[in-house]
Amino acid sequence: MSEPPVDPAQASGAAPPAEGEAGPSKKGAKKAEAKAKKEAEKARKAAEREAAAAAQKAASGGNEDLAKDNYGEITPTTKVDAEKVQLKKLGEEHVGKTVKLRAWIQNARMQGAKMAFVELREERNWSIQGVMAASPEGKPVSKQMVKWVGALRLESFVLVEAKVQKPLEPVKSCRVSEYELHLTKVYLVAAGPEVLGLSLNASNRAVASFEDEDPSQAAAPTEGVETLTLTDGAAAPSASLSTHLNNPVMHKRAPVQQAIADVRMTTRKLFSQYLEEREFVQFEPPCLIGAASEGGANVFAMPYFDKKAYLAQSPQFYKQFEIAGGRKRVYCIGPVFRAENSNTPRHMTEFTGLDMEMEIEEHYHEVRDMIEGLMIYIFRGLQEKCKEQIEIIKAIYPSDDFLLPEPGKEVRLTFAEGQKLLREEGPEEYRNVSDDEDMSTPQEKALGALIRKKFNTDFYVLDKFPEGARPFYTIEDPENPKVTNAYDFFMRGQEILSGGQRIHIPELLEARIRKKGIDPASEGIKDYVDVFRSAGVPPHGGGGIGLDRVVAWFLNLPSVHLTSYYPRTPKRLLP
Amino acid sequence: MSEPPVDPAQASGAAPPAEGEAGPSKKGAKKAEAKAKKEAEKARKAAEREAAAAAQKAASGGNEDLAKDNYGEITPTTKVDAEKVQLKKLGEEHVGKTVKLRAWIQNARMQGAKMAFVELREERNWSIQGVMAASPEGKPVSKQMVKWVGALRLESFVLVEAKVQKPLEPVKSCRVSEYELHLTKVYLVAAGPEVLGLSLNASNRAVASFEDEDPSQAAAPTEGVETLTLTDGAAAPSASLSTHLNNPVMHKRAPVQQAIADVRMTTRKLFSQYLEEREFVQFEPPCLIGAASEGGANVFAMPYFDKKAYLAQSPQFYKQFEIAGGRKRVYCIGPVFRAENSNTPRHMTEFTGLDMEMEIEEHYHEVRDMIEGLMIYIFRGLQEKCKEQIEIIKAIYPSDDFLLPEPGKEVRLTFAEGQKLLREEGPEEYRNVSDDEDMSTPQEKALGALIRKKFNTDFYVLDKFPEGARPFYTIEDPENPKVTNAYDFFMRGQEILSGGQRIHIPELLEARIRKKGIDPASEGIKDYVDVFRSAGVPPHGGGGIGLDRVVAWFLNLPSVHLTSYYPRTPKRLLP
Repeated sequence: MSEPPVDPAQASGAAPPAEGEAGPSKKGAKKAEAKAKKEAEKARKAAEREAAAAAQKAASGGNEDLAKDNYGEITPTTKVDAEKVQLKKLGEEHVGKTVKLRAWIQNARMQGAKMAFVELREERNWSIQGVMAASPEGKPVSKQMVKWVGALRLESFVLVEAKVQKPLEPVKSCRVSEYELHLTKVYLVAAGPEVLGLSLNASNRAVASFEDEDPSQAAAPTEGVETLTLTDGAAAPSASLSTHLNNPVMHKRAPVQQAIADVRMTTRKLFSQYLEEREFVQFEPPCLIGAASEGGANVFAMPYFDKKAYLAQSPQFYKQFEIAGGRKRVYCIGPVFRAENSNTPRHMTEFTGLDMEMEIEEHYHEVRDMIEGLMIYIFRGLQEKCKEQIEIIKAIYPSDDFLLPEPGKEVRLTFAEGQKLLREEGPEEYRNVSDDEDMSTPQEKALGALIRKKFNTDFYVLDKFPEGARPFYTIEDPENPKVTNAYDFFMRGQEILSGGQRIHIPELLEARIRKKGIDPASEGIKDYVDVFRSAGVPPHGGGGIGLDRVVAWFLNLPSVHLTSYYPRTPKRLLP
Repeated sequence: MSEPPVDPAQASGAAPPAEGEAGPSKKGAKKAEAKAKKEAEKARKAAEREAAAAAQKAASGGNEDLAKDNYGEITPTTKVDAEKVQLKKLGEEHVGKTVKLRAWIQNARMQGAKMAFVELREERNWSIQGVMAASPEGKPVSKQMVKWVGALRLESFVLVEAKVQKPLEPVKSCRVSEYELHLTKVYLVAAGPEVLGLSLNASNRAVASFEDEDPSQAAAPTEGVETLTLTDGAAAPSASLSTHLNNPVMHKRAPVQQAIADVRMTTRKLFSQYLEEREFVQFEPPCLIGAASEGGANVFAMPYFDKKAYLAQSPQFYKQFEIAGGRKRVYCIGPVFRAENSNTPRHMTEFTGLDMEMEIEEHYHEVRDMIEGLMIYIFRGLQEKCKEQIEIIKAIYPSDDFLLPEPGKEVRLTFAEGQKLLREEGPEEYRNVSDDEDMSTPQEKALGALIRKKFNTDFYVLDKFPEGARPFYTIEDPENPKVTNAYDFFMRGQEILSGGQRIHIPELLEARIRKKGIDPASEGIKDYVDVFRSAGVPPHGGGGIGLDRVVAWFLNLPSVHLTSYYPRTPKRLLP
């Protein structure tokens, strides 16, 4: 068994926690809630039985159900001929018309014996209220039909026919508040479960705890989390990240997660767009590699026929091979892997890298400025194209707007200038930071706060990193070999991109490899150096961005695990 | 050492085969050639020494080199102020003007003691002739300078300043034939090697042999390969695939490889474009998975902290999770892995999957038709956008045009109709093929030939595959459970896409899993089925395309290894 430890009851669905709970809570409260839920469930089942009995009775002719063809499980012959409509496109022109749509049951309840209210949800958070009242003459809507609809399980998928009407007053609980649907046909396409492992209410709330993937070790929900609800139902407690990820379907159905996914994919698109407009061409680096080329620490290894293979930690060498192979500008987007046993909100073992590399014509600042322009294009593009999504996310995960520099006022400090700022204006403990040593994460954050205050931006670059802080392929500043032609980019005081100019002359490359204490003849290294011997390679530089971090820090989310479709950590490989 | 067997001399660069050779040849011929090359090399070195001596003599004042600032190795202070120009944009307006550009030396030779000719190449196959003649007054061009330029090594990268002129007659050996450059400054940015491991001439020819990655086992070059050359030099023999891949820089510099890469990336783009226009959203499935979910055969496994991880063989389950998670239409593009010990021109252990999945509203033919439209859009798009690239490729790898059906005349046969065609009109050995058994590869090819003859198309779909030929998640035809709602798409008689409708009702899914003899409680399977229990999931279907094969079969290339940036096979993990 190779899975991370998971509550077996929950994973199996045999006796899952009831909707809206599922997350960690203290034992006593849990018991009481469980009991309450059990009873609620009992009542729900009784109602279902009653509805079924009524339907049967109707079918048997004791009290003929004149609406029996207008509801029930869908069959291959079921046909609804009305105009198809999407909720996001519903308008005045539809009022009074009969339409059809398919949606999830987000809520269903009876009012008296003759009326049912349901909430129907399409993709993202497009929802609308559906109303059903039994017709006095027993059709098109019978009492049996109303009961059946009122008892539909949450998150069932249905096909409905309905007349669009204006409600007496706006329906606050639904995104489509100006219209409602008077249901005339309801067919069950796929039933929801008896009890949801994670309710949409809980799923669309801030995740309560992240500290561990093992639910038995998870702490109680964070105090003060938002209690916004999607429906008019009672506020439900929020759930831990484990509960979310162990219930992927409900996790993904939450509008907040769909909004995050939209921001993520828009980031990818903006990255490609900016570069393609500047004559970059995409290429595909391999994941499987024959040597642990970039140092060998934190690399996944596996048997590969009669050999050993490794998973690429970055496309660094391959970007360079493309430049050597005659492409002037390249980029790639794909998975990279780190076998690092870090269980923090910043780490994953598999994540998406956005990488670029380009020829340098005269100065490596051509690359630095290209990346700066690229990132600002992405940030402004997100603010414009994902306005709605950012609002949805902010309602759940409140954050300050991401501050961007005015055009022409981009903040570019040298590493030494950054350290000076920390020494002179930073917290006490940074009075003696050195220009020759790399920064720690808390140091970076402190500098980020200083820069925000001083320059009113959450985005900036530190250039000219010290020689010791950069890998063997980074070129030294020809005027000052204590520093390199290399930079990091930061968002809210956290590094999101590392890059610089690479060494393109094989003799210089070999010399720096030796200086770093590495044997130029060692596995992986030799083949790399030989590439630069095999033909003249133009000067070049680039950078690599972690997509997950860009999305997480832009939105100020508490963890990169919320930005990934299927986060992979030392403890999690499923779903 | 985990690398595939490689000729050590060649890999190390210590004594690589001379340019244009490198490939396999009989022993005697090899020896003679090696000797000839040695001598040519000796002569070249002597010329270099002479040039260096002349330069030194000039510098020492014995015969002052008045042009000494106009050539030599580039330094941080080198500056050329002329207008930058790209060869592909060179036009009449440049004639008589002084321009600068950076390019590779594709050829360099002296004519007498006072003139040098070089061929300069930019990205793809944009090349131009450069001419240099010593000025009578010794500047701007000295005799020493001409000698130095004439002795420049092949594939060196240089920065030049030149006046654009019309040549006396078109320069046939260069793509830019209507202009030539009268060089006034030449600086060496990065030197080429003494001897190239693979010449551009050889690299831009049809690969001679594919049968094995081990060069010692490779056969003699195929007879009748094209002998087109890029320059006016002598025709060089073509090289084996191993020689190509062991010399990645020169392999990639060949215009034919850059054209194939363009076709590949255009295919990716057309795939995304078509789907995005139809409201598909992209997502990212994981590569690392916790269970060998799709059967377990041919899956790479690796230690993962205290667990075991596998590399995904397809994003199948994850596409379905996205649909279950509330997305109506999704697609993804990324690496997939097969641990199959197959050393054929059709197989790789890592390749790029183009995958899509969508909700079905009424009938699974919505999906089949979506994919059909998608593929035709891609093919027509390639024919339009990659006209030039296709020409370049056809000159090296001749092929018949890829035949597409007329709009409205798409060829959709059922599997049974395909088998009937084979039985009635196919070769003798297929007189008895059955409707219940999957086709073999030769059978598919025979059917492809029949369909081409009968319907004048290289692209078609076979629908309604027999039950036994489809995996457990494929839905059976409700009207005839002997077949499934599933299809394959073909190009030139070779399968490039498999797809169909999936089972979205957990009870049906479990029943079919049992019918297939799989335990529904087994690792990976249980979690998959539980997803459909966790909330109502709409009916859905999709398909997965192998990018490498689409490109290879569209261009009728002899191997998918030519379409991949860094092909991975059981024998090759490098570069």
